[in-house]
Amino acid sequence: MTPSLDLVPRIVAGAVPAIGRLISRAEAGSAEARPALAEIYGRAGRAHIVGLTGVPGSGKSTLVATLTAHLRRGGQKVGVVAIDPSSPYSGGAILGDRIRMAEHVTDAGVYIRSMATRGTMGGMARAALDAVDILDVAGFDTVIIETVGVGQDEVEIARASHTTVVVSAPGLGDEIQAIKAGILEIADIHVVSKCDRSDANRTLTDLKQMLTLGALTTGRSEWRIPVIGLSAYKGEGFEALIGAIGDHRRVAFETEAGAQRRRAIARFRLEKTAENLLMERFLRKSGALSGPLAERLSARDGDPYSLANTLLEDALGPEAGGAGARS
Amino acid sequence: MTPSLDLVPRIVAGAVPAIGRLISRAEAGSAEARPALAEIYGRAGRAHIVGLTGVPGSGKSTLVATLTAHLRRGGQKVGVVAIDPSSPYSGGAILGDRIRMAEHVTDAGVYIRSMATRGTMGGMARAALDAVDILDVAGFDTVIIETVGVGQDEVEIARASHTTVVVSAPGLGDEIQAIKAGILEIADIHVVSKCDRSDANRTLTDLKQMLTLGALTTGRSEWRIPVIGLSAYKGEGFEALIGAIGDHRRVAFETEAGAQRRRAIARFRLEKTAENLLMERFLRKSGALSGPLAERLSARDGDPYSLANTLLEDALGPEAGGAGARS
Repeated sequence: MTPSLDLVPRIVAGAVPAIGRLISRAEAGSAEARPALAEIYGRAGRAHIVGLTGVPGSGKSTLVATLTAHLRRGGQKVGVVAIDPSSPYSGGAILGDRIRMAEHVTDAGVYIRSMATRGTMGGMARAALDAVDILDVAGFDTVIIETVGVGQDEVEIARASHTTVVVSAPGLGDEIQAIKAGILEIADIHVVSKCDRSDANRTLTDLKQMLTLGALTTGRSEWRIPVIGLSAYKGEGFEALIGAIGDHRRVAFETEAGAQRRRAIARFRLEKTAENLLMERFLRKSGALSGPLAERLSARDGDPYSLANTLLEDALGPEAGGAGARS
Repeated sequence: MTPSLDLVPRIVAGAVPAIGRLISRAEAGSAEARPALAEIYGRAGRAHIVGLTGVPGSGKSTLVATLTAHLRRGGQKVGVVAIDPSSPYSGGAILGDRIRMAEHVTDAGVYIRSMATRGTMGGMARAALDAVDILDVAGFDTVIIETVGVGQDEVEIARASHTTVVVSAPGLGDEIQAIKAGILEIADIHVVSKCDRSDANRTLTDLKQMLTLGALTTGRSEWRIPVIGLSAYKGEGFEALIGAIGDHRRVAFETEAGAQRRRAIARFRLEKTAENLLMERFLRKSGALSGPLAERLSARDGDPYSLANTLLEDALGPEAGGAGARS
């Protein structure tokens, strides 16, 4: 196996196999890759990171494909890190909607990576942000993090970007509308997809009204959140979206609010990485220990809290384990 | 504040205010509540726990409401623990679809509780399973855990039940179908909702075919997974579903496979509780420490891994912290 550190100069040169390999090692949580990822982090910081999220059925994947095409036409190299739901058994990412990206697969100016959501406990955010840095260092100008707008981890990752785009669509059911309500507040840019539909106007008006009422503008007075209607079918609205992303890039890189946001992202990343390392260590040490304790729990010889404390003490010692948890 | 231990006899007597209070304390992760939750755990084990999950738009909430009505008619007391998506800012559960449960709110034989998904890092699973036990001890015969079938945590919780019901619906978009693929394998019982629609037959046939091909039956040879068509609109299929749930209850409580499943649930619960206690302790200790380290990370004076190691060491000591994570 090529040592990860040897991959770094190849990544800097934009070599696709090296990019793929280091992302895979980051995703696997390989300790061997950490010095290389540290090196990558030190060189990153140039790319514009765009988080793109929306509920299932909002037309997110079509938007990513079209947006990529438009950015390419403007001469940019575009990276996409897509966080996909994964099967609890197979552990594999579902690549269904990646098919829509097929037009880009032969274009060296586009790199698309699907990541599974299996690495919970902070691992998904850590790996996704490592992947973004790798693409940044490899010379991609815009890196899109695409996540489904359901699940707290997914929403948090979409926020850990310079510019967050939230996609809404007309005519979704109640349940999806309710989920949507949870992600509207994170948008720097609102997009309403499927604007060739007659009911799209209602969605546009609703969003604009919420913005006018100040419901969705938490602490971002230096930026007027736009609401952009898109139709992938008619090819309308994409210039406006590209323009808004460019405008917000300036806010992100040239204002105090942008600097503050980058500090918040750094803090999120630090905490997620720490949580992930801690959980990794715990799981590595607890694996062999939890079976007998689970038997006791199953037999109701002990309760979840006291047995969990025992497991923590056995795995990590009294300081990090039970004693502290009891305090 | 009433000490949590004093709530236990009231919960045993079925007092609704006591039930609500202890669930709230479990949800908040209150350390004071742990002896009471331990006591509850020791008394629980009688209720049939039914996990019910499906993608957004599958008609899950309508199904829970109708299922509840049917179980009530059979004389059972029914508890529902619904895991709802939450806003990243407001932290509140979205209660939109609870409206469909309105017919049950004045019925003392039904208890419905929405829980937010905010407590990630294992906290959601821990709190949901504590809530299930509280309802169990309070005399509810069937406790339904309803989760949206997106997000690994949500799917894992639906699996942590005696009987897992997965709801599919005809006519959902590609993106939702892809997500659905990830949850089909966890079903003990498949339900296809909206069977008054003409395209429902296709969904039924697809599921049956997958089952015939052995694609969805991982290690459950003692139970033939049924596929049940439902129409809430026409009121059809619910008797068959109640029958199947009853049949699977016998598998869960009276067979070796059922005992094995209960042991697996105990292990899941032990590990989730331990992860949650560990993460709680880390976050409590790291809060004040992470600001300055995040500043360094933001300035690229250090990389995420080494600064995360420093944070772990500072918060939990070298054993649980950096030293181990480096090994």
